[in-house]
Amino acid sequence: MRKTPKARLYYPQSLNNRSEVTLSDAPAHYLLNVLRMNCGDEVRLFDGSSGEYTARIEACGKKSCMLRILEKSADFRQSPDLWLLFAPVKKDKTDFIIAGATELGVRKIMPTITKRTISEKIKKERYEAQVIEAAEQSRRTDIPQVEDAQSLEKILKNWDPARILYFMDETGNGGSICPAFAKGPQSAAILVGPEGGFEPGELEMLRGLPYARGVSMGRRILRAETAVMAALSCWQALCGDWPEGKPAAFEEK
Amino acid sequence: MRKTPKARLYYPQSLNNRSEVTLSDAPAHYLLNVLRMNCGDEVRLFDGSSGEYTARIEACGKKSCMLRILEKSADFRQSPDLWLLFAPVKKDKTDFIIAGATELGVRKIMPTITKRTISEKIKKERYEAQVIEAAEQSRRTDIPQVEDAQSLEKILKNWDPARILYFMDETGNGGSICPAFAKGPQSAAILVGPEGGFEPGELEMLRGLPYARGVSMGRRILRAETAVMAALSCWQALCGDWPEGKPAAFEEK
Repeated sequence: MRKTPKARLYYPQSLNNRSEVTLSDAPAHYLLNVLRMNCGDEVRLFDGSSGEYTARIEACGKKSCMLRILEKSADFRQSPDLWLLFAPVKKDKTDFIIAGATELGVRKIMPTITKRTISEKIKKERYEAQVIEAAEQSRRTDIPQVEDAQSLEKILKNWDPARILYFMDETGNGGSICPAFAKGPQSAAILVGPEGGFEPGELEMLRGLPYARGVSMGRRILRAETAVMAALSCWQALCGDWPEGKPAAFEEK
Repeated sequence: MRKTPKARLYYPQSLNNRSEVTLSDAPAHYLLNVLRMNCGDEVRLFDGSSGEYTARIEACGKKSCMLRILEKSADFRQSPDLWLLFAPVKKDKTDFIIAGATELGVRKIMPTITKRTISEKIKKERYEAQVIEAAEQSRRTDIPQVEDAQSLEKILKNWDPARILYFMDETGNGGSICPAFAKGPQSAAILVGPEGGFEPGELEMLRGLPYARGVSMGRRILRAETAVMAALSCWQALCGDWPEGKPAAFEEK
């Protein structure tokens, strides 16, 4: 069996039916100068649409290299239909949220401006780069989509009511997370408010939406980044793709 | 109704039946100089053993202040019997793990040296300070206990087999997290390995222990800090104190 190459890179064009690929700029620099790879070394490439491929470096230039695709090493697998709506927080915490959400298999990331959101500049390009890095490391074959920051109000204006929106309710008035997630549909979104929580008016508005469900995560107050990780993990465990044999697992005795 | 004071501080001696308290050093500096509080301002104090109390500043010195205890504002509530064993990682990631584990209600934190643990200096005092800060902010009334770093081998030598040890198995050979947690006992520990995972020999050893269960969190590779948050959250949702009416919630239809 071929040894799994350590380096794993996203290639932004389809690799389906291609026999070779030329890398330049940052990816080439990373392979040749950071990892000090050479001709004959193997890497894994994935395109976000058709799967993952093992490729071998065949020729190295100063700032580029050519790779031959040897075989498909993993089928494309789309992450569950889960979106994350989060109110941006401080830089390092947001970094953590973006990487964690990618590892935890969300399909779309929506920076969401609520009344109490104190956001530094929201840099979509920065988020997109983080998403790619986290996808490379977590062995995803798809890349979560990053949206432009929008106000909660605007996001909800165009909401498809077939998608359930779970909002994390710190006031203790939400439902228990397990039954809420386990019984929900396969299209879902999780909304986590900013430090300081939602404003009372926002909570009232959310509670009035037919597709929204308030969810509680216990009595202890979670920081925004912990709440994101917690909610996404529970959803993947209860409703997502962690158990291959999903809800039936609960019927086991 | 009395307005809830914003400042919430841990006081390391019993406050039960006390009518006043003198703060000095860091807590006094925090109240007087950072928060710029004065006589008449109210704070919440908790002692980690009897509950939380509302107190009013009655006298301010240069480096200390005296507070009168006005009322008990929350009963003592012990967090579930859940331990976290984690392999220390880089500083900022470990900080995140310590704070997150406190918010997610673990009772004990055990820095655990595995074969592949690349730990910088493990500073128990630093962890203890972080645990207190996170307990203050998350409104816990108890403080998780922080142990000295020990090798996995040594920790397991004295293990009480009545406590189930869930280890996060990245190889995909673990069981699904929901049935494993939902059916487990109320005394549990979660073990998350270092970056790079456990060594094959460690996994084999863990699999041979009658009280240990390998658990899988899907196909995507989680970084250590994400894995800690994910596993602790799922345990609290399925087996811990998040749902007040615990496993019965699953029988709801």
